[in-house]
Amino acid sequence: MYPFLSDLRVVECASFIAGPSCALHLAQLGAQVIRIDPIGGGMDFNRWPVSADGRSLYWEGLQKGKRSVAIDMGRPEGRQLAVDLITAPGAGAGLFVTNYPQQGFLSHEALAAHRPDLITARVLGWRDGAPAVDYTVNAALGMPWITGSDRNGEEPVNHVVPAWDLVTGAYAAFALMAAERHRLRTGQGQEVTVPLSDVALTCLGHTGQLAEALTTGDRPRYGNALFGAFGRDFATADGQRVMVVAITARQWSGLVKALDLQAAVAALASQLHADFTEEGQRFTHRQALFPLFDKAIGALTLAQARERFEAGSVLWSSYQTLRTALDTDPRLALAAPLFETLGHPSGLHYPAPGAAASFHGTPRVPVQRAPHLGEHTDQVLAEVLSLSPTRIGQLHDAGLIA
Amino acid sequence: MYPFLSDLRVVECASFIAGPSCALHLAQLGAQVIRIDPIGGGMDFNRWPVSADGRSLYWEGLQKGKRSVAIDMGRPEGRQLAVDLITAPGAGAGLFVTNYPQQGFLSHEALAAHRPDLITARVLGWRDGAPAVDYTVNAALGMPWITGSDRNGEEPVNHVVPAWDLVTGAYAAFALMAAERHRLRTGQGQEVTVPLSDVALTCLGHTGQLAEALTTGDRPRYGNALFGAFGRDFATADGQRVMVVAITARQWSGLVKALDLQAAVAALASQLHADFTEEGQRFTHRQALFPLFDKAIGALTLAQARERFEAGSVLWSSYQTLRTALDTDPRLALAAPLFETLGHPSGLHYPAPGAAASFHGTPRVPVQRAPHLGEHTDQVLAEVLSLSPTRIGQLHDAGLIA
Repeated sequence: MYPFLSDLRVVECASFIAGPSCALHLAQLGAQVIRIDPIGGGMDFNRWPVSADGRSLYWEGLQKGKRSVAIDMGRPEGRQLAVDLITAPGAGAGLFVTNYPQQGFLSHEALAAHRPDLITARVLGWRDGAPAVDYTVNAALGMPWITGSDRNGEEPVNHVVPAWDLVTGAYAAFALMAAERHRLRTGQGQEVTVPLSDVALTCLGHTGQLAEALTTGDRPRYGNALFGAFGRDFATADGQRVMVVAITARQWSGLVKALDLQAAVAALASQLHADFTEEGQRFTHRQALFPLFDKAIGALTLAQARERFEAGSVLWSSYQTLRTALDTDPRLALAAPLFETLGHPSGLHYPAPGAAASFHGTPRVPVQRAPHLGEHTDQVLAEVLSLSPTRIGQLHDAGLIA
Repeated sequence: MYPFLSDLRVVECASFIAGPSCALHLAQLGAQVIRIDPIGGGMDFNRWPVSADGRSLYWEGLQKGKRSVAIDMGRPEGRQLAVDLITAPGAGAGLFVTNYPQQGFLSHEALAAHRPDLITARVLGWRDGAPAVDYTVNAALGMPWITGSDRNGEEPVNHVVPAWDLVTGAYAAFALMAAERHRLRTGQGQEVTVPLSDVALTCLGHTGQLAEALTTGDRPRYGNALFGAFGRDFATADGQRVMVVAITARQWSGLVKALDLQAAVAALASQLHADFTEEGQRFTHRQALFPLFDKAIGALTLAQARERFEAGSVLWSSYQTLRTALDTDPRLALAAPLFETLGHPSGLHYPAPGAAASFHGTPRVPVQRAPHLGEHTDQVLAEVLSLSPTRIGQLHDAGLIA
């Protein structure tokens, strides 16, 4: 974590990945984040993966460093408490992250009646507010039809990384920072909506894939071959797999040399009248090229391949399992300063990450665990809304807070 | 695009997706972005997808709204020009986005000697600066072993969405905004490094996957089944596919009701002593549940399924191809205000996206096309470095700029 945003106070009413990760990124750069949950937990409170006794590792990963307030928002008094927290005064306050629907008591319009300079960052599914999740957006955009190989026949292949959720969370944090900067200069608040579907669609636009679909049609399935240049998985003599990539001319010449394939590749180029220094030709002629590399890499053990690739500055990686990577790969060690081993609400102790960015001019501050549900209800109501102990006691007695 | 960041000037020396998309996000919220390329184009200038005559749709997607300066950075005079542009004075200037190595003439230390409050946002592959790309980081982290199904046997399945690149680009834009906010308050610049591998690792940490791997071991392949709740692809009577998801209790009851499966699901729950209102039990017993849904959905055409799902507020999508989606799905229409049809450097006209976020208090300004390579060299050198026409002519004659 870093202290940059410690003058900001963000209130979050959100579930799953995109909204909560947006607020998590803010928290890990120092913002005070208050997460409001229903009593007993929101829709994501039990989301898998879970510990042996059913506590969500997902939830406690996404809520790190936030304060937790539990309110019964099913009753008018509870809804009013949430609105009061979101619109409480303070120069750096009035920042709201949510994935609740645009209508209802958490609409920007209703909230801005209490605090006109409120900034609402609202993650949506579809642009019109209809629900969508990473997996439905991805299916709608056709990515599962170009994932996998012939082996998958007529079946789509879902991705396992919730890519659009993760991009949306980071992008929403960026958009909120831009809106907050604008508010500092003009005093103007506003609602910022970030639909998962628009994030996915713009990403495909930014990388040329929409233009390709419009002009060339649908991309076929290319298995593990990297589109438009040289790259694929290869098996080693000892049954391991490596991903090898050569996008630039230099990566290509380094790879060919590392495998002693200069003569064979030159002969093939001559035979095909091809120029493999052009990345596109390496892709076009991949079916002719791959067997050379299958044979060369297939003759090496992983250790031998590693030695050659590292000596030749080849762009590659072995295919590891996640657990093997964490246990053995020093580049992925869960070590300080990025990770700290903490006790979590599940009762488990394990390393938890701080901010992915390293700010070299500023020391990191300790990573903080996720709260227990409602851990800060009393503290936050006293501090932000100046409620008396008596009043807080009454709210507990009425079952409005926990 | 939006005008929020128009007082900021960013210089970019970067290739591929993460660094250029970081600067693109800044440009689309109004920052003036100057992209410096080698004469003839950088490593990504011909990256696929390409037009019929070989112009990169990828490059022109990622450089939208930037100004292009072409400099021979292989010579000391060219390197000095780049350094001068990066460190030029101005309150909102001194922002540098790059994926060049940390050593050399574009090191933060060397640059900060000319402008101490410089902010450098540097995208790295591995944390130590060693090269990596999306596909090698993903292989190292084991995601390809849990993508795909039994059909893929012992083969890894690469993802096709460059997820870690895209998250890194958005997250780096967020981190740069935080650093710029810090500079506004303290005058202090700094280098911010954002390694692809740390972005991927922290994302897996934030969503509980690292804790899962450390405590439970590696996650097996679950095919298209959504981990930890109910979800999978299903075939319809007319040979279409739908992705159906029920994470929350409400989504589950809605789905069961939409397919008239209440009695069958209740009977199964009773037989298995299961409580399907718990998301985890829907996952644990998925092999018993899926046949009920295979049969129910398999009896419906896509149109019939759509009718039932929409009436029942089911969370679902059909699996479309990208082109079909763009042609027929109104939720993914490439229409104003998010998209505008423009002429691009390739000579093609097609719709290009602005910012994924919609700021409801501020009108969008027009989306701008990518520059031609070197289109703004003279203009930028005159404007930012106050070079005279004579001097600019000399630099052209010497082949230092183009």
